[in-house]
Amino acid sequence: MNLVERSAQQSAGEFAAVRGEAPASLDAFARAVLGTIAEPGDGVLGRVIAAVGAAAAAEALLAGAPAERLADAVGAAGGDLDEREAESGLARWRPRLDHGDFVRSLAQAGRVGARLIVPGDACWPSGVDELGVHAPIGLWVRGRSDALDGRVPTIALVGARAATGYGEHVAMESSAGLVDRGFAIVSGGAYGIDGMAHRAALASDGMTIAFLAGGVDRFYPLGHESLLSLIAQTGAVVSELPCGAAPTKWRFLQRNRLIAAASGATVVLEAGIRSGSLNTAGHAAALGRPLGAVPGPVTSPASAGCHRLLREFDAVCVVDADQMAELAGRATRPGATTRDPAAAGAVGSRPRALAADTPGARSAVDDPDAIRILDAMSSRRPRELPEVARRAGLTVIEAMAALGRLEAEGVVERRPGGWLRRRAG
Amino acid sequence: MNLVERSAQQSAGEFAAVRGEAPASLDAFARAVLGTIAEPGDGVLGRVIAAVGAAAAAEALLAGAPAERLADAVGAAGGDLDEREAESGLARWRPRLDHGDFVRSLAQAGRVGARLIVPGDACWPSGVDELGVHAPIGLWVRGRSDALDGRVPTIALVGARAATGYGEHVAMESSAGLVDRGFAIVSGGAYGIDGMAHRAALASDGMTIAFLAGGVDRFYPLGHESLLSLIAQTGAVVSELPCGAAPTKWRFLQRNRLIAAASGATVVLEAGIRSGSLNTAGHAAALGRPLGAVPGPVTSPASAGCHRLLREFDAVCVVDADQMAELAGRATRPGATTRDPAAAGAVGSRPRALAADTPGARSAVDDPDAIRILDAMSSRRPRELPEVARRAGLTVIEAMAALGRLEAEGVVERRPGGWLRRRAG
Repeated sequence: MNLVERSAQQSAGEFAAVRGEAPASLDAFARAVLGTIAEPGDGVLGRVIAAVGAAAAAEALLAGAPAERLADAVGAAGGDLDEREAESGLARWRPRLDHGDFVRSLAQAGRVGARLIVPGDACWPSGVDELGVHAPIGLWVRGRSDALDGRVPTIALVGARAATGYGEHVAMESSAGLVDRGFAIVSGGAYGIDGMAHRAALASDGMTIAFLAGGVDRFYPLGHESLLSLIAQTGAVVSELPCGAAPTKWRFLQRNRLIAAASGATVVLEAGIRSGSLNTAGHAAALGRPLGAVPGPVTSPASAGCHRLLREFDAVCVVDADQMAELAGRATRPGATTRDPAAAGAVGSRPRALAADTPGARSAVDDPDAIRILDAMSSRRPRELPEVARRAGLTVIEAMAALGRLEAEGVVERRPGGWLRRRAG
Repeated sequence: MNLVERSAQQSAGEFAAVRGEAPASLDAFARAVLGTIAEPGDGVLGRVIAAVGAAAAAEALLAGAPAERLADAVGAAGGDLDEREAESGLARWRPRLDHGDFVRSLAQAGRVGARLIVPGDACWPSGVDELGVHAPIGLWVRGRSDALDGRVPTIALVGARAATGYGEHVAMESSAGLVDRGFAIVSGGAYGIDGMAHRAALASDGMTIAFLAGGVDRFYPLGHESLLSLIAQTGAVVSELPCGAAPTKWRFLQRNRLIAAASGATVVLEAGIRSGSLNTAGHAAALGRPLGAVPGPVTSPASAGCHRLLREFDAVCVVDADQMAELAGRATRPGATTRDPAAAGAVGSRPRALAADTPGARSAVDDPDAIRILDAMSSRRPRELPEVARRAGLTVIEAMAALGRLEAEGVVERRPGGWLRRRAG
């Protein structure tokens, strides 16, 4: 019996509870383990799993296999991973291995009724597989785990938290109209546009799905706790992060890729020029999925991001549910998923440039490590380098390099007790 | 001395007055004559002029040359005109030949200070030559006849007469901002968006040019008489129609092609789904000129035409003067005049489908002859077929065919005294 099997046996009760009727599977168990040690979208882990499978990847990690052996195993299975990559991967994953944490997370999932779904399950949303090595390892679902199984067409309605009355009106009309046309509404559960899209879908007895940036045991934002509970009753609240995981800036950005990938089309209803919903739009375009934007008054800064999508990213101008349904319909015709592949490629090469709506994040948007480091830091309590690295899911060397860049920008500072994030302003 | 020379001699005084400092030219005189006998955009006359020149074309007409000889002359000069086309051309032009009318029109032009400019003049707007055989034969100008000589970059700001406060605000800001950036503002002198664009340019001490659908001796609409007088003082009021010519539906549609062709770029600021400004947009796209549209609230029908341009005609989303200036700037880079030649071609194949904003014109928009026949009819006094044909600038056979179609649609009716246009509703 190897280490993964032994671990599975040790937490068999907790694991059975989160897999529902699904047959016990070492692959699913290994994915649950790996989901706790890597940040979302870790492409190195994605390549390891693609080559040797989740169970072997988890075994190598639990057994403390040297980097050379991991790289060789991936190579032998036809994958591509050099020793340096294997080393840095192991260096950032290992500090997060904690059997106690893992079992507590499983138990918490069981308590709130969350289910784990993994690739190969009938209800797995095949659209997210197009993320390739950045696809989620597994998804935690509260509510209908079959909400994204493809039988109901999905459309993402996203937008800014700082919505206007106009934006909320459009969100409400669009969401209700799309429900009437048989669509399930995917969004991010946030205040503003997202919340209105979810609410209107619920009010029309439609199905709606919220993707969260943290564990599904803790509904975020707090003010949407009852909304998200309602969503979980008839639709689904979904996250790739295990229960207990806090939402961070990095995880919000990665969550956005899931919204885009799980939906037949993405429509930005109202967004300021730096709204995070433009990041979702960038992912949709990079995936070659239909991307729509609702125009608004040019005098309204709350629509400036939508106009930018129309102007620079070849988004389709959509003004009502009919046009949004037509947009999503394009996705069903093979080879007609985007108006202009060249334009989609252009967006794909710079999706991150569209993402930034928190202070200080402007310089970091082209620097994923910096985003994760800032997520991992406190502005009140200094943290030592290894602690920052573990929280960020990075190696100590990667963390040090990113901290150096952020220190040069004056965003973080070295203190006797460790590193401190400087307050904005 | 041929007939054109004799005619030129007979009206030498009147003609000299409308040519200003330009040297006397038989070509220019012939163009003045031809401009009175053909409707704007007459492609058959355009082909005759392109082949044998305006003077020979006018001579053939004045001399009553048979169709066969005209077709042969065009063929010998390398042009293409079959005898049937020559025959129908002559049949629609000849009934309009009237020396008295012509001299009165010249005298009226002289009284209001209108100048005739023709291709080859230094101040001729070279952009209109891209209309090919549909280019204007000459242009009548009140104000600065050099307003369109290309030294000042031009941009067309157009939109609906039924503008909202939002549209007027955007028109004002855009026009003033473009004047600040060194542009001359081209528009159609109409109520609503056009008027606001002209006014804001004047208020910023900028140059602005109004293209009219009738003679420049009569400012239309009446409520804009003082505005158009102001425009003529510092900019220019321009028409391809001779003084005395009334504005008609057909002439409005043809006037729109001049606005598009004389401008480096065209921007539609606010337009309902059937606004005539979409016709101008269609011409701009067909010419491969940059086309912009200003978005507005999707809840406002007054912006629906702009959204249609963004959605279906690949117009560029522009939200302020900066972006409009950038759009016009694209025109100065050869080979970069349009984002997508294929899309421009698609528009070019159906510019007429964008044009219609008067009741009853809906069915006629794909039928230019029908538009001209309706222009030529009265709803109070029946007119005989030859009279309707002459007023429409069509042959009797063409007029009869169009009347038949319109009768089938119930738009016109046969009466004892001739044909009557039925009142709408």
